[in-house]
Amino acid sequence: MRVAAGDERADLVLRNGRVVNVCSGEIYRGDVVVDDGRVVTVRAEPWGHAGREERDLDGRHVVPGLIDGHMHLESTMLTMGEFARAVVPHGTTTVILDPHEYANVLGPAGIRFVIDSARGLPLDAYVMLPSCVPASPLESPRRPLLAADLLPFLDDPAVLGLAEMMDVPGVLARDREALAKIVSTQTRGRVVDGHAPEVRGDRLAVYAAAGIGSDHESTRVEEAREKLRLGLWLMVREGSASRNLSALLPLLAELRPSRAFFVTDDRDPVDLATRGHIDSMVRMTLDYGLDPVEAVRLASYNAAQYFGLRDRGAIAPGYRADLLVLDDLASFRIAAVYKDGQLAAEQGRPLFAPPPPDVAALEAISDTINVAPLTPADLRLRGHDGPATVIGVETNQITTTQLTETATTRDGAIVAAPERDLLRLVVVERHHASGRVGLGLVKGFGLREGALASSVAHDAHNLAVVGGEDADIIAAVDAVRRMGGGFAVVRDGAVIAALPLPLAGLVSPRPVEELVMGLRALDEAAAGLGCALEHPFMTLSFLSLSVIPALKLTDRGLVDVAAARIIPLQ
Amino acid sequence: MRVAAGDERADLVLRNGRVVNVCSGEIYRGDVVVDDGRVVTVRAEPWGHAGREERDLDGRHVVPGLIDGHMHLESTMLTMGEFARAVVPHGTTTVILDPHEYANVLGPAGIRFVIDSARGLPLDAYVMLPSCVPASPLESPRRPLLAADLLPFLDDPAVLGLAEMMDVPGVLARDREALAKIVSTQTRGRVVDGHAPEVRGDRLAVYAAAGIGSDHESTRVEEAREKLRLGLWLMVREGSASRNLSALLPLLAELRPSRAFFVTDDRDPVDLATRGHIDSMVRMTLDYGLDPVEAVRLASYNAAQYFGLRDRGAIAPGYRADLLVLDDLASFRIAAVYKDGQLAAEQGRPLFAPPPPDVAALEAISDTINVAPLTPADLRLRGHDGPATVIGVETNQITTTQLTETATTRDGAIVAAPERDLLRLVVVERHHASGRVGLGLVKGFGLREGALASSVAHDAHNLAVVGGEDADIIAAVDAVRRMGGGFAVVRDGAVIAALPLPLAGLVSPRPVEELVMGLRALDEAAAGLGCALEHPFMTLSFLSLSVIPALKLTDRGLVDVAAARIIPLQ
Repeated sequence: MRVAAGDERADLVLRNGRVVNVCSGEIYRGDVVVDDGRVVTVRAEPWGHAGREERDLDGRHVVPGLIDGHMHLESTMLTMGEFARAVVPHGTTTVILDPHEYANVLGPAGIRFVIDSARGLPLDAYVMLPSCVPASPLESPRRPLLAADLLPFLDDPAVLGLAEMMDVPGVLARDREALAKIVSTQTRGRVVDGHAPEVRGDRLAVYAAAGIGSDHESTRVEEAREKLRLGLWLMVREGSASRNLSALLPLLAELRPSRAFFVTDDRDPVDLATRGHIDSMVRMTLDYGLDPVEAVRLASYNAAQYFGLRDRGAIAPGYRADLLVLDDLASFRIAAVYKDGQLAAEQGRPLFAPPPPDVAALEAISDTINVAPLTPADLRLRGHDGPATVIGVETNQITTTQLTETATTRDGAIVAAPERDLLRLVVVERHHASGRVGLGLVKGFGLREGALASSVAHDAHNLAVVGGEDADIIAAVDAVRRMGGGFAVVRDGAVIAALPLPLAGLVSPRPVEELVMGLRALDEAAAGLGCALEHPFMTLSFLSLSVIPALKLTDRGLVDVAAARIIPLQ
Repeated sequence: MRVAAGDERADLVLRNGRVVNVCSGEIYRGDVVVDDGRVVTVRAEPWGHAGREERDLDGRHVVPGLIDGHMHLESTMLTMGEFARAVVPHGTTTVILDPHEYANVLGPAGIRFVIDSARGLPLDAYVMLPSCVPASPLESPRRPLLAADLLPFLDDPAVLGLAEMMDVPGVLARDREALAKIVSTQTRGRVVDGHAPEVRGDRLAVYAAAGIGSDHESTRVEEAREKLRLGLWLMVREGSASRNLSALLPLLAELRPSRAFFVTDDRDPVDLATRGHIDSMVRMTLDYGLDPVEAVRLASYNAAQYFGLRDRGAIAPGYRADLLVLDDLASFRIAAVYKDGQLAAEQGRPLFAPPPPDVAALEAISDTINVAPLTPADLRLRGHDGPATVIGVETNQITTTQLTETATTRDGAIVAAPERDLLRLVVVERHHASGRVGLGLVKGFGLREGALASSVAHDAHNLAVVGGEDADIIAAVDAVRRMGGGFAVVRDGAVIAALPLPLAGLVSPRPVEELVMGLRALDEAAAGLGCALEHPFMTLSFLSLSVIPALKLTDRGLVDVAAARIIPLQ
C-alpha cells in the first residue's frame, strides 16, 4: 500500500508492456508495479515513480504465471527442485500435485515428503490428497491409505482437497470409505477432483451428486460437454500418454467456458524437455485460433478459481507477482519468468538453484525395494500346451487387449516363445518382501532375448519384469533391487543399461537432461534386444494398473479389469 | 445419490423445460430432477423414473434462483419475513445483507438479530459485517463498532465477510482499526467488499492493495472498467436512489465480465412493490440485448462465485434446488419459484407465511428512541442577520449542495423563513438521551408550515427534523418518540400523518403493502404542507450522512463532507 501511494519505492517496475488482463478480458498497454512479491498496481498510463529496479518491456506482453491444475510429479521422475528447474522456464509458477505414487510406496510419509520438498523454490506446489491407494483391491501398495490417514492433512495450508476419485464403482455403490474421504474434504470447504472416463448419463449424475467437482478424463467433445453441463469443472489434459487438447479445442472455442482449465496429469521427462509444460497447451490453443485472453484464462485464472486460490491467476493489486514476459504472444515464446516478483528464468534457462537436498529426508524415502530372494521356482508357471490368455500391448498405449495364444510348455510349465513374441510377464511384490509373484504372458514387446525390469509399475509400484528366460528375469529384478529402484535392461544375465530411481523407486535426484539421456539409452538397449515398442518402460510401467482396461497383471495375478477379478491363464 | 441412481423416487421432477445452464453457457431442453432440496440431475433426454411430484413445464425456461449481492434490509423497512414475502415471488432466493443500520442503533445485537431472523424462510440471508459504524467521527451511533466487536461473528456460517469499507480515507491512511477489520476477515478466507465512489488511479490501487475485493459505486463505464482491470469485482447497483445499471450495460455487453454481478444496495418498499428486485435488473439487461445466459450469470452465478457459495447459482447435481420457472424468458415473467425444492411462490404470490415472530427478540430491538426532553431553548440557533451557510436539497438526490443565504433572526436567533423556502433542520441525538442537538438551515423542502420528523437518518439514525416553528418541531420529535421510531408529519402542533417503525426505529413489522400505503399517505400529507420533494422522508433520511457530499447536519453540527469537519453556520 505504501508503494501504491508512492510513499515508498517499488521493488520492480515493468514499463511499457502489453498487459493481458484476465479480470477485464482486455489487452492494453501498461506498467506493472511490483513490491514484496505482489503486484502493487497496473497502470494504463506511465507510473510516475521510480522503482528500485526497472525494465522496459518495449511493448512485450505480460501474462500471469501458468498453473497445472492436476499432475503427478512422480511421472516426471524428477525431484521437486529439478522439476522446478525444468518447468519454471516454461512459465509454470503453480502446480497442483497428486502424490499418488509416493503415497502407494510410502503411505502418508510420501504425502508429507512432497509437501515439505516444495519449500524454497520459485514454484508453488499445492497438494491434493491421493484418494485411491490402492487403485483397486487387486493390487498391493505398501498399505491402503484410509480416510483416517488423510484427515490430518486436510487442514494443512498446502492441501487443497482430495485428488482424482478413481474409485467410480465405490462412489456409485456409496462405499463407506470412499464417501468418508469425500465428505471430510467437503466439510472443510475443499474440492474433490474426479476421474470418470466414459462415465455418462445417470451414472455421471450420481458421481457428480456425490460432491465431485471436476474431471480430467474427457477425450471427446460430447463427453466434455455433458460433464460441463452437470457442473463438473473440465480439466483439459495433455499428458505424455493421454493427449486430449486437440479433441476438446472445438468445445473450448464454442463455449469459452469459465469452468475449464489445463492439466498435464502425467508428463515424462522427455516430453517436458522437448515439448514443455502448460505453455505447450497455450501454444496449441493459440494456433487453433482462440482469443489469447481466453487461452491465458484456461492456463492460469480458471484453475485458481476452481481451487479457491484468490491470490493468483491474474495481474492485479494484491495478487502474487507471478508474471511472464513474452517475446511474442502468438508463439507464446517466454522471455522472462518472475515468481513472487523475483526473476526466476530467462530465455528458457532457470536462474535459481534448488536448495541443497535434505539428506535425511531423501534417505528416508530411499531403500524402498524390499523383495524376497527370487528363484526359478518362484517363476514357474504351471500349465499345459494349448490356449492361454495373453496380454496384448501396442506402442504408446496404456490400455491392453486380451488375446488367446497357444502356450508352449517345458516340464509342465509355460515358457516364453520369443519367436512368436510371447514373453513372460512377472510382477514381484516389493514393499514387504512377501515373496508374492504374479505370472503371466504378454505379446507386443518383441524382445528376442534378455529382460526389462521396472520399479515404476502403476499404481502400487511393485516390480514389473518382461523377458524370456528365468536367469535374465532374476538378474533384472536383482539389478533394480541393487539400485534401490529404477529401470534395467539385461542380456545374457548381465545388465547392459540401467537408470537408477532411488527415491521411492520412482524418482531420480538427477537433472532432467541426464534423465532424458538415460531413458534414451534404455530405449536403445531395448531396441537392440529386438524391442518393437517406442518407449517399452512406459508401456511396462502401466501393465500392473488394475483399473485401466482390458487385461493387466499384478502381484496377485492376471486381472480382468472390466470384471474386476483375478482370472486364470488357462 | 440414491435418487440419481434410480433406486429411490425423486421428490420432484420438472419435465420438458428449457434449462438455462450457466455452467456450460447453453440453453437446452431438459428434465430437472430434485430431491431433498437439491438438484439431483438435469437430463437432456427424458428422465426415466417417476417423481413423487411431477410438473410439465411445457417448454418453459428454468433458471437458478437470483442473488442480491449487497443490500441493506433496513432500507426496505421490512422484517426479514415480510421482505421474503415481497422478494421471493420476484425470484430472489439468496441475499447478502449488510445490517449496517441495525448495527448503528443496536451494535452487535443488531447483527445477531439479522442473522437469527433469517431462519425458517424460503430465502437464504447471508451477512457481511458492517465495517464502518460510525460512518465518520462526525456522527454518533449508539456506539462505535470495533474490529474486536466483529471478531466473534467471523466464524459464523451465516457471515461471508466484511461489508462495504466506506472508510476510504482510513484505508488509504493505513488506519490501524480499518486494516485490523480487513486483515481479520481475510485471514479467515472471507471477502471484503469495497465502497469507493470516484476513487481512481493510484488511490484505487492502494485501496485494492489493502485487500478490498469489490465495489458497487461505479456510475460510469470508465470508472467500472478501471475497477475491473484492477481486480475488483464489479457490483452493478440498481437501488432506489442510486441507479447505475443503464450506464453500465454497455460495459457488460462489451466485456461479458465473469467478475460482475447485480446488487440493489438500498431499495425502498415502494420500489420493491412496483419494480421488483433483482428480476427488474434482469429485465433491463435482456431489453438491452444481452445474451440471456449472461444476464442470468450476472443475477446469480457470478455473485455465488465471488462469495464462494459453491452450492448455488447454477442448476447442476448437488446444487440447491433454487429454481425459477419462467412464463417467458424475454420478459423474464416468473411463473413459479422453488426454494430448496419447495414451491415458494407462484405467479407473483408468496405461498408461505413467515414463522411467528419471536416476541422477545422484537421487544429487545424496540423502544430504542432515547431522547432528552426537547425545549425551545435547545432549538435556539444563535446568529445574526446576514449570510449563512445552508444545505441545498433536490428531489431524489442524496447529495446536497452548499448554499449561502441571508439569515432571518428574531431576538438574536436565526429562524426559518418559509417564504424563501429557508427551513430549520434539527438533528437530535437519540441513543443516549444526551440532549445533544445539531442545528442548521435547509432549502428545497418547500414546506409552508408544519414539520417532518424521522428516526431513519443515515447512518447513525439520530432523529432528523425539518420545519419552521419550534412547537411543530418539538411535536414531531415527540410523535416519533412515542411511536418508538418512525415518520411523522405535524401541522399546527398536531400529528396529521405518521408511520411507526418500532423496530430499532427503522423497520415496521407490517407487510409491504401497508408500508407502501403509509408512505404514500406521508408524501401526500407533506405535499399538503407545500412540500416540493417527491419523497421528502427519503431526502430527510440522508441529510445526516456525513460521508456523502457536500453539506450535511449531524447531532454534532454542520458537516463539510469534503473537509471532513464541522463548520459554523455563520
